[in-house]
Amino acid sequence: MRFTSQTSSDGVTEQFFTLDEIPGVLWTPDDTPGTRPLILLGHGGGQHKTAPAIVSQARRYAAEGFAVVAIDAPNHGDRPKDEEFGRVVAEMRAGMASGENPGVAVAGMHGHLAGRSVADWRAVLTEVQRLDRVGVGPVGYCGVSMGCGLGIPLVAAEPRIRAAVLGLLGVYGLAEEAARVTVPVRFLMQWDDRLVPRDQGLALFDALASPQKTLHVNPGAHGDVPSFEVDSALRFLARHLT
Amino acid sequence: MRFTSQTSSDGVTEQFFTLDEIPGVLWTPDDTPGTRPLILLGHGGGQHKTAPAIVSQARRYAAEGFAVVAIDAPNHGDRPKDEEFGRVVAEMRAGMASGENPGVAVAGMHGHLAGRSVADWRAVLTEVQRLDRVGVGPVGYCGVSMGCGLGIPLVAAEPRIRAAVLGLLGVYGLAEEAARVTVPVRFLMQWDDRLVPRDQGLALFDALASPQKTLHVNPGAHGDVPSFEVDSALRFLARHLT
Repeated sequence: MRFTSQTSSDGVTEQFFTLDEIPGVLWTPDDTPGTRPLILLGHGGGQHKTAPAIVSQARRYAAEGFAVVAIDAPNHGDRPKDEEFGRVVAEMRAGMASGENPGVAVAGMHGHLAGRSVADWRAVLTEVQRLDRVGVGPVGYCGVSMGCGLGIPLVAAEPRIRAAVLGLLGVYGLAEEAARVTVPVRFLMQWDDRLVPRDQGLALFDALASPQKTLHVNPGAHGDVPSFEVDSALRFLARHLT
Repeated sequence: MRFTSQTSSDGVTEQFFTLDEIPGVLWTPDDTPGTRPLILLGHGGGQHKTAPAIVSQARRYAAEGFAVVAIDAPNHGDRPKDEEFGRVVAEMRAGMASGENPGVAVAGMHGHLAGRSVADWRAVLTEVQRLDRVGVGPVGYCGVSMGCGLGIPLVAAEPRIRAAVLGLLGVYGLAEEAARVTVPVRFLMQWDDRLVPRDQGLALFDALASPQKTLHVNPGAHGDVPSFEVDSALRFLARHLT
């Protein structure tokens, strides 16, 4: 793990790093070494590790005492795009343009990335927890939309993750892995989401095996999750990780 | 309005009262006169103003600085039962026993009580806000199950109510009044509720005209709302009333 830059503002230290070919960012409270809970933030499709919603959420959580890490998903952000991914995305767009179920089209794209993404996150988790300012504390995962599509396979596979904030995605391609998610889950839906029909989002919530899971639904489009849900997710994570 | 008893514990004053034939309870923080936000608590079917869930919620809210009032719904608690109501309840039970849609059966019972209940609440609201320790501050309503069935007509009719916690009920008999509810709403559903099928609960959430409304769904039966939802409802009410 190689740190490439470090800055600090408003009590939060932001460090860019690479681990093998994975570019990432770590946010921690300034000058407070010691073990702390860690939150993994998964970004949305076409976005990257420093998308505005990721950075604002990360700084909010770090200010509350969490360590927070975000990485570029495969074929996103500062990572090279492979030809196969270009083909998968073109297929997805063509499918959506021709009226194919968007859930099916998106699931194909997520399925193409999930294996690599899960391996990346597990490697980053191990390395980040070796740092003095993070340590081996409880771990949570937050990701919606593509961050949910790549997050469910991760949470299903990774026993170190003890709580997850997921959502803005339907059930296609995820039912089996959702049935292996047993940690407490906060699941977000937008009631007027054109990318995720209501029944598909509800079916994914339903498919999660977690005995403790709460669905939060708000009006509005895919990108219009109200800001109070970030505060609410923070309280959910604090309840389960601290 | 006639007060019949007053006790205080843990910083909260509890006063029983009657207004005309309506028996009620008022909870306020001890020894702190002045205008404060007021929460109206509507109890469930077959329950009453001092059901354990009502009292614990009321004391919690009063400890946070709210004034809280609960009254017995018509034909409930310390109020006389009329013959007509006995007939309506017998019909409801017979309908449910014979496999009738329970939403339709329950809606008939609520419809029988709603007119009286709305008038009771409006009279109590006016009188309670005349008290020095309450005053004319912002008002919220909390009620699930029958408390929702009687609450939606109240919130639709009463412009003094500025936010509401509702839920655990389906859409039957309520669609028109829900379409006249425009204040912020927190709506609770239980995902394995045998009394309220999922589609009926979702349809009632959907029918609310409020631009700001959030649905919270948890696993479990009608009566199994997790305790963290009381804390969450308190934050929702604080956000909109203070």
